[in-house]
Amino acid sequence: MSPQERLVKQVTAKSEDFSTWYNEIIRKTELADYSPMKGMMVIRPHGYALWENIQRLLDDRIKATGHVNAYFPLFIPESFLQKEAEHVQGFSPEVAWVTIGGKEELEEKLAVRPTSEAIIGYMYAKWIKSWRDLPVLINQWANIVRWEKVTRPFLRTTEFLWQEGHTCHETAEEGEAETLKILSMYKEFCETELAIPVLSGRKSLREKFAGAQMTYAIEALMSDGKALQMGTSHNLGQHFSKAFDIKFEDRSQTLQYVWQTSWGMTTRTIGALVMVHGDDSGLRLPPRIAPVQAVLIPIALGDWKTSVLPVAREVERELKERGVRIKLDDREEYTPGWKFSEYEMRGVPLRIEIGPRDVKAGTAVVVRRDTRAKESVALASLKDRVTVLLDEIQKGLFEQALRFREDNTRDASNYQEFKSIMENERGFIRAVWCGNEACEDKIKEETQATIRVLPLEPESAETAGVCVCCGEPGGTPAFFAKAY
Amino acid sequence: MSPQERLVKQVTAKSEDFSTWYNEIIRKTELADYSPMKGMMVIRPHGYALWENIQRLLDDRIKATGHVNAYFPLFIPESFLQKEAEHVQGFSPEVAWVTIGGKEELEEKLAVRPTSEAIIGYMYAKWIKSWRDLPVLINQWANIVRWEKVTRPFLRTTEFLWQEGHTCHETAEEGEAETLKILSMYKEFCETELAIPVLSGRKSLREKFAGAQMTYAIEALMSDGKALQMGTSHNLGQHFSKAFDIKFEDRSQTLQYVWQTSWGMTTRTIGALVMVHGDDSGLRLPPRIAPVQAVLIPIALGDWKTSVLPVAREVERELKERGVRIKLDDREEYTPGWKFSEYEMRGVPLRIEIGPRDVKAGTAVVVRRDTRAKESVALASLKDRVTVLLDEIQKGLFEQALRFREDNTRDASNYQEFKSIMENERGFIRAVWCGNEACEDKIKEETQATIRVLPLEPESAETAGVCVCCGEPGGTPAFFAKAY
Repeated sequence: MSPQERLVKQVTAKSEDFSTWYNEIIRKTELADYSPMKGMMVIRPHGYALWENIQRLLDDRIKATGHVNAYFPLFIPESFLQKEAEHVQGFSPEVAWVTIGGKEELEEKLAVRPTSEAIIGYMYAKWIKSWRDLPVLINQWANIVRWEKVTRPFLRTTEFLWQEGHTCHETAEEGEAETLKILSMYKEFCETELAIPVLSGRKSLREKFAGAQMTYAIEALMSDGKALQMGTSHNLGQHFSKAFDIKFEDRSQTLQYVWQTSWGMTTRTIGALVMVHGDDSGLRLPPRIAPVQAVLIPIALGDWKTSVLPVAREVERELKERGVRIKLDDREEYTPGWKFSEYEMRGVPLRIEIGPRDVKAGTAVVVRRDTRAKESVALASLKDRVTVLLDEIQKGLFEQALRFREDNTRDASNYQEFKSIMENERGFIRAVWCGNEACEDKIKEETQATIRVLPLEPESAETAGVCVCCGEPGGTPAFFAKAY
Repeated sequence: MSPQERLVKQVTAKSEDFSTWYNEIIRKTELADYSPMKGMMVIRPHGYALWENIQRLLDDRIKATGHVNAYFPLFIPESFLQKEAEHVQGFSPEVAWVTIGGKEELEEKLAVRPTSEAIIGYMYAKWIKSWRDLPVLINQWANIVRWEKVTRPFLRTTEFLWQEGHTCHETAEEGEAETLKILSMYKEFCETELAIPVLSGRKSLREKFAGAQMTYAIEALMSDGKALQMGTSHNLGQHFSKAFDIKFEDRSQTLQYVWQTSWGMTTRTIGALVMVHGDDSGLRLPPRIAPVQAVLIPIALGDWKTSVLPVAREVERELKERGVRIKLDDREEYTPGWKFSEYEMRGVPLRIEIGPRDVKAGTAVVVRRDTRAKESVALASLKDRVTVLLDEIQKGLFEQALRFREDNTRDASNYQEFKSIMENERGFIRAVWCGNEACEDKIKEETQATIRVLPLEPESAETAGVCVCCGEPGGTPAFFAKAY
């Protein structure tokens, strides 16, 4: 696309049409593009750089908690998927099948992995013999295919990228502890790195992973008032170890089935970054995961190449040395004005401008993307100031998102109130649920809201009460929302 | 597998049966395992850790040369593969096809990518409009599927992992320069990081990539005398830009087709590490890519937990601080003897032993995996000595491999000589080739040797001469070998 074209195209305002805004931002900031296959996207360099940062920061945490990476095959024989009854039922409607290999019809068709419990379970049965082999703490970074009917870039695509952890333990307690450890790791990761506050808790049985004993999840509130599931951690119990015969000799020489967990986070987190932090002008990226943290734009006036450019290069060098991901954009075929709006749209946290007058004054102009606050900073203290500002932006984005979630989390004590909130304001509703699937179904059907999580820590007595739907006493508190 | 089982199993000697040795090493050192699908392997954590190091070190070079990463879809519509005539002919026999998605028969079947020129070409046509958009320098890390008839872990598998670079340029010269830049990058990477010397040059037309104008490659000699292609860099010319209509407005406002390159390195490099450096006892990993560079084994005697272990922990901390990838193995359910042989087989470059007597003497025993040389080192100078030894091992492995290649590169001036060398000694043969495909075919049929590379720099006059096969004068020097 030539620069002239880009300049004139405005982005639809977020407040006006959220869905159009989202699709435009994804395309115009070059995070992703549509491919010729329905529902499959191309992750462009700008989007992939975000994914690389997410990968690196999450992978560090995965390894720090004792896990190692491995790689399992892309294809899974049909008979493997069928071994766990709930699993096949849950996934078979969305599988892409390979039926021909090297010009020959295959005897057994192969699923392109919709998740890897089945193939990994088969291998674990070969590898695990004794308690000495436990725990097995393996993670995989991979591509996943699910034949989705309605798709949206990053949020729901036929192919996506993720990490999937698959662990085996000696006891039920260790399995549960692992499941919860990962849940906290995911929460901390989202809040620290993505600046996205999340609610964590368990899912209702209706919403759990097909084949799990219990699913835990973290959920974030998008700025249109809908929730997005950011990650899940499943306690698989012995469901798959029984289906795949994964047994070990325990410390008292008895054969036992292992206790398993699985957990994943995907490229949909990039969609969350857009929907939580974006504004009418485009992206606002949290500095910790922004591919470029500060863009340096020399103002091309007069003898700028001999006066401004050397100063800009020195600033670039200093900031790089400080560990700031800085980009000096000295291209002549684009005007400073075009660059300002381009990087604003792309969400670069800080813009640094240096022109001939700044050079004379020994200063630079620094502009925050989040608040648009502008200040003049002495070159000598620029690197310290940039570091401080990046920290402030990271915190500021988190606090803004947290405030938004708090402002949009409402209590509903009866069904009338519940329906009214869901219709007018959306957001999270905190309400008591009797635990009955009939109420859960009714609420979903009539309001489109589902139970996002059941909080782990029991709430204080005052919030307990009667079921928001049927009015029966003795339920548990739950967070409801419409969800992506 | 329980430790007792492992201990008693010996590895087949490499000199005795290279092929069995290779398969055993891969399995016993837990680099990879067979999956239930023929030809698809599981890369186990030990093998994947090698791949992660390869990825990191190669990715750094890819980025340092100005490239960025992206991700394109796994599936490619059949009609796309057919757009470049040679390309479809080359790849269609080995494609796995998805024909069913979400329970429905697809209207057009989808290839699981055997390489991504076609899908990337389609996207480039959408993205590139002007010379300002060039060069496009994109790389992708991805999984690839090729339905192979004869497979071998890492060397030839139905699914493998790789990186594939796909670039677009304004001129033919820039395309050629990029192709050669990547070729040198690959060579430098293999020699510096993998300690594997490679020959580089162009391929004959018979051996080039299906759809390329010219293929360049690097080739290494395995210790059984067969060559392995370690990486390829293709100058695609305008073959794909014409097939996919990738045009740009040049600096004089004329529409032109872009000039393209593509290039890749794969998980087969792990097979090369095994075959170049391995010995009868197992792997010998070059320190720069070894997941564990030094293993620290406390000798469990007497009050070792209070006397030896704290010293070992301190050594571990110091070496970690120095940037050494150190692993302290203080497991009590395994004996030191078992650990020695286990890490020797796994190819850990250095073993450090600390026992009660060492603690008293203020020393540690350090054993090199490559030469098995053993020395006692004062604890105070241990970290310096370890750094030096790791460097020496890296160099030593490279030099040993280079000497082996030099000893196994022979000149053949006539066909009798050629056949005799290929039958008795293998290795590389340097000989003159007339450039005629008939000779190339005859040599392949009668000796199984193929042209691995045609060197880029013209050799000195003395090596030029008559074709080793037909005896006609006026050929080019070529390196021949049997190849994996």
